[in-house]
Amino acid sequence: MYLPAHFDECDDDEIRRIVSAHPLATIVYSTPSGVDAQHIPLIFDGERRLIGHFAADSDALDKLHDGDSVLAIFNGQCSYVSPNWYPGKIRHHRHVPTWNYQVVHIHGQVSFLMSKKEKTAVVGKLTTHFERRANGPDAWKMADAPADFIQEMLGKIAPFAITVERTVAKSKVSQNREREDFDAVRSKMESAGHEELAQRIKRLEENL
Amino acid sequence: MYLPAHFDECDDDEIRRIVSAHPLATIVYSTPSGVDAQHIPLIFDGERRLIGHFAADSDALDKLHDGDSVLAIFNGQCSYVSPNWYPGKIRHHRHVPTWNYQVVHIHGQVSFLMSKKEKTAVVGKLTTHFERRANGPDAWKMADAPADFIQEMLGKIAPFAITVERTVAKSKVSQNREREDFDAVRSKMESAGHEELAQRIKRLEENL
Repeated sequence: MYLPAHFDECDDDEIRRIVSAHPLATIVYSTPSGVDAQHIPLIFDGERRLIGHFAADSDALDKLHDGDSVLAIFNGQCSYVSPNWYPGKIRHHRHVPTWNYQVVHIHGQVSFLMSKKEKTAVVGKLTTHFERRANGPDAWKMADAPADFIQEMLGKIAPFAITVERTVAKSKVSQNREREDFDAVRSKMESAGHEELAQRIKRLEENL
Repeated sequence: MYLPAHFDECDDDEIRRIVSAHPLATIVYSTPSGVDAQHIPLIFDGERRLIGHFAADSDALDKLHDGDSVLAIFNGQCSYVSPNWYPGKIRHHRHVPTWNYQVVHIHGQVSFLMSKKEKTAVVGKLTTHFERRANGPDAWKMADAPADFIQEMLGKIAPFAITVERTVAKSKVSQNREREDFDAVRSKMESAGHEELAQRIKRLEENL
């Protein structure tokens, strides 16, 4: 991805926060007939591994095999930025429109986890992660469903891991602007409800 | 993309609405060293053409040439769906977690628009589109900036069109659930502020 040095997101905690807050990844990979993309929720399982699952009848299973390279893209918040928002515009009018956004690209190798034990482990981790977040102490558990139903469901999925080889992330949040314009964009992000972009600006400003 | 028939979004108006509401596209394409992805705001320019621009020093310009195939992905709203949300769960417990989301895949051919006239036209259309939406009658106009500055800025971009060859879209909004569970998910989407997903469910229900 196009990544000028000032937009390079090098903070590992921030990268993991973006992934955690926007887990529905776009997984892209080359096929003989072009590029394919699948949309799959992923979570970290340790430091260098993401896990998720395809449907067992997904076209991804015809295209992807153990060891194949994939790119998992996590799209964070985004916002249009108008030149009208910059105080500096009133003086010199040397501004143009742009977009602010955060995105994480994780390049890695896919490996399928198709034994009953592996399938149960992946689904258990995903369920615990997302249910605790959604429902806290009332989290749904796999044990809430009949055992035959869970076995039937496990038969319909193809869990996999992505072993992380390279991570590239971008936080494009107007940090290349003058301080008063950067401040003004933070205020706009706050009032527009783009709290993640506002927080990233705030921490960059604290380190200026 | 994996697309069971019941999740196939065939409504052209809805597809254009998703693109318009989520214009920051992920553009992916094959390169000799793997798949690359760029994040670029795109708008329709007519029925079968998208327009946008790369930075002139983007790595995309080393990889992409006129006529190359690209896939532009527009990610709409998404939401985790807990089994706890389904009224039917209390009776039979035969539910598992999932995610709802909307996404549009537009496959097409890229062509660069590098003459001064073409560059000015693309930037003018993008500016008018996004500024009117952001600022209405107070929209910023290119003429607000000094002419030398606009010329300098035009030198820093590489506008392009994508000629649309094939569009595939997905609205995964629990329409494969029983009516009472589908209703309950709509209510959850409304209360969570996922208005686009709620509206899509509402229109599907009206046609049941």
